Amino acid sequence: MKARVHVMLKNGVLDPQGEAVRHALGSLGFDGVEGVRQGKVIELDLADGTTEDTINEMCEKLLANTVIESYRVEVL
Amino acid sequence: MKARVHVMLKNGVLDPQGEAVRHALGSLGFDGVEGVRQGKVIELDLADGTTEDTINEMCEKLLANTVIESYRVEVL
Repeated sequence: MKARVHVMLKNGVLDPQGEAVRHALGSLGFDGVEGVRQGKVIELDLADGTTEDTINEMCEKLLANTVIESYRVEVL
Repeated sequence: MKARVHVMLKNGVLDPQGEAVRHALGSLGFDGVEGVRQGKVIELDLADGTTEDTINEMCEKLLANTVIESYRVEVL
Protein backbone atom coordinates (compact mmCIF):
# COMPACT_ATOMS: atom_id res chain seq x y z
CA MET A 1 0.00 0.00 0.00
CA LYS A 2 1.01 3.57 -0.53
CA ALA A 3 0.49 6.60 1.65
CA ARG A 4 1.30 10.25 1.21
CA VAL A 5 2.11 12.53 4.13
CA HIS A 6 1.93 16.30 3.75
CA VAL A 7 3.92 18.30 6.29
CA MET A 8 3.40 22.07 6.41
CA LEU A 9 4.60 24.73 8.82
CA LYS A 10 1.77 25.80 11.09
CA ASN A 11 0.12 29.14 10.48
CA GLY A 12 2.02 31.89 12.21
CA VAL A 13 5.36 30.12 11.93
CA LEU A 14 7.73 32.12 9.75
CA ASP A 15 8.48 30.38 6.45
CA PRO A 16 11.65 31.92 4.97
CA GLN A 17 11.76 29.37 2.15
CA GLY A 18 8.23 30.29 1.05
CA GLU A 19 9.06 33.96 1.40
CA ALA A 20 12.11 33.51 -0.86
CA VAL A 21 9.95 31.78 -3.48
CA ARG A 22 7.37 34.58 -3.33
CA HIS A 23 10.10 37.15 -3.85
CA ALA A 24 11.68 35.22 -6.70
CA LEU A 25 8.31 34.85 -8.47
CA GLY A 26 7.86 38.62 -8.24
CA SER A 27 11.33 39.18 -9.69
CA LEU A 28 10.47 36.90 -12.61
CA GLY A 29 7.49 39.11 -13.42
CA PHE A 30 4.68 37.02 -11.94
CA ASP A 31 2.31 39.56 -10.40
CA GLY A 32 -0.36 38.86 -7.85
CA VAL A 33 1.49 36.25 -5.82
CA GLU A 34 0.17 37.14 -2.39
CA GLY A 35 1.68 34.39 -0.32
CA VAL A 36 3.71 31.23 -0.60
CA ARG A 37 4.16 28.46 1.95
CA GLN A 38 6.50 25.60 1.32
CA GLY A 39 6.20 22.19 2.88
CA LYS A 40 7.23 18.59 2.40
CA VAL A 41 5.45 15.67 0.87
CA ILE A 42 6.61 12.19 1.75
CA GLU A 43 5.44 9.19 -0.25
CA LEU A 44 5.63 5.95 1.68
CA ASP A 45 5.56 2.49 0.17
CA LEU A 46 4.35 0.32 3.05
CA ALA A 47 3.61 -3.33 3.72
CA ASP A 48 -0.06 -4.15 3.14
CA GLY A 49 -2.11 -3.88 6.28
CA THR A 50 -0.19 -1.00 7.83
CA THR A 51 -2.78 0.97 9.75
CA GLU A 52 -3.31 4.71 9.60
CA ASP A 53 -2.47 4.77 13.32
CA THR A 54 1.01 3.45 12.53
CA ILE A 55 1.48 6.13 9.87
CA ASN A 56 0.38 8.80 12.36
CA GLU A 57 2.93 7.43 14.80
CA MET A 58 5.66 7.72 12.12
CA CYS A 59 4.66 11.35 11.66
CA GLU A 60 4.71 12.12 15.37
CA LYS A 61 8.05 10.41 15.92
CA LEU A 62 9.99 11.34 12.81
CA LEU A 63 8.34 12.93 9.81
CA ALA A 64 6.92 16.09 11.37
CA ASN A 65 8.12 18.39 14.11
CA THR A 66 4.71 18.83 15.70
CA VAL A 67 5.79 21.90 17.64
CA ILE A 68 5.93 23.94 14.45
CA GLU A 69 4.54 21.65 11.75
CA SER A 70 1.19 20.10 11.04
CA TYR A 71 0.75 16.95 8.98
CA ARG A 72 -1.94 15.25 6.97
CA VAL A 73 -1.98 11.56 6.04
CA GLU A 74 -3.55 10.40 2.80
CA VAL A 75 -3.79 6.66 2.16
CA LEU A 76 -3.70 5.99 -1.60
CA MET B 1 -7.45 31.80 -5.30
CA LYS B 2 -5.17 29.12 -3.96
CA ALA B 3 -3.12 26.52 -5.76
CA ARG B 4 -0.94 23.71 -4.57
CA VAL B 5 2.08 22.47 -6.50
CA HIS B 6 3.60 19.07 -5.79
CA VAL B 7 7.20 18.62 -6.90
CA MET B 8 8.71 15.13 -6.79
CA LEU B 9 11.96 13.70 -8.05
CA LYS B 10 11.37 11.67 -11.21
CA ASN B 11 11.48 7.91 -10.96
CA GLY B 12 15.01 6.66 -11.31
CA VAL B 13 16.54 9.78 -9.79
CA LEU B 14 18.32 8.92 -6.57
CA ASP B 15 16.56 10.38 -3.52
CA PRO B 16 19.02 10.40 -0.60
CA GLN B 17 16.59 12.31 1.64
CA GLY B 18 13.89 9.67 1.14
CA GLU B 19 16.46 6.95 1.66
CA ALA B 20 17.51 8.53 4.97
CA VAL B 21 13.89 8.65 6.12
CA ARG B 22 13.39 4.99 5.16
CA HIS B 23 16.44 4.03 7.16
CA ALA B 24 15.41 6.13 10.16
CA LEU B 25 11.91 4.61 10.20
CA GLY B 26 13.51 1.15 10.23
CA SER B 27 15.75 2.16 13.14
CA LEU B 28 12.69 3.36 15.05
CA GLY B 29 11.16 -0.10 14.72
CA PHE B 30 8.69 0.52 11.92
CA ASP B 31 8.82 -2.61 9.81
CA GLY B 32 7.64 -3.01 6.27
CA VAL B 33 8.65 0.40 4.99
CA GLU B 34 9.61 -0.60 1.46
CA GLY B 35 10.33 2.77 -0.04
CA VAL B 36 10.21 6.46 0.71
CA ARG B 37 10.36 9.39 -1.71
CA GLN B 38 10.44 12.92 -0.45
CA GLY B 39 9.28 15.93 -2.40
CA LYS B 40 8.10 19.49 -1.96
CA VAL B 41 4.65 20.95 -1.76
CA ILE B 42 4.23 24.66 -2.44
CA GLU B 43 1.01 26.43 -1.55
CA LEU B 44 0.43 29.58 -3.57
CA ASP B 45 -1.97 32.34 -2.69
CA LEU B 46 -2.65 34.00 -6.04
CA ALA B 47 -4.69 36.88 -7.41
CA ASP B 48 -8.09 35.72 -8.65
CA GLY B 49 -8.11 34.90 -12.32
CA THR B 50 -4.57 33.54 -12.46
CA THR B 51 -4.71 30.80 -15.09
CA GLU B 52 -3.35 27.31 -14.73
CA ASP B 53 -1.03 28.11 -17.65
CA THR B 54 0.59 30.84 -15.56
CA ILE B 55 1.06 28.43 -12.68
CA ASN B 56 2.63 25.88 -15.03
CA GLU B 57 4.99 28.61 -16.22
CA MET B 58 5.98 29.35 -12.59
CA CYS B 59 6.79 25.66 -12.18
CA GLU B 60 8.86 25.48 -15.37
CA LYS B 61 10.78 28.65 -14.59
CA LEU B 62 11.30 28.39 -10.84
CA LEU B 63 9.50 25.85 -8.73
CA ALA B 64 10.67 22.62 -10.34
CA ASN B 65 13.90 21.55 -11.96
CA THR B 66 12.26 19.71 -14.85
CA VAL B 67 15.43 17.81 -15.69
CA ILE B 68 15.11 15.72 -12.55
CA GLU B 69 11.73 16.70 -11.05
CA SER B 70 8.14 16.34 -12.12
CA TYR B 71 5.36 18.59 -10.89
CA ARG B 72 1.61 18.51 -10.52
CA VAL B 73 -0.61 21.57 -10.14
CA GLU B 74 -3.81 21.42 -8.11
CA VAL B 75 -6.09 24.47 -8.11
CA LEU B 76 -8.02 24.61 -4.83
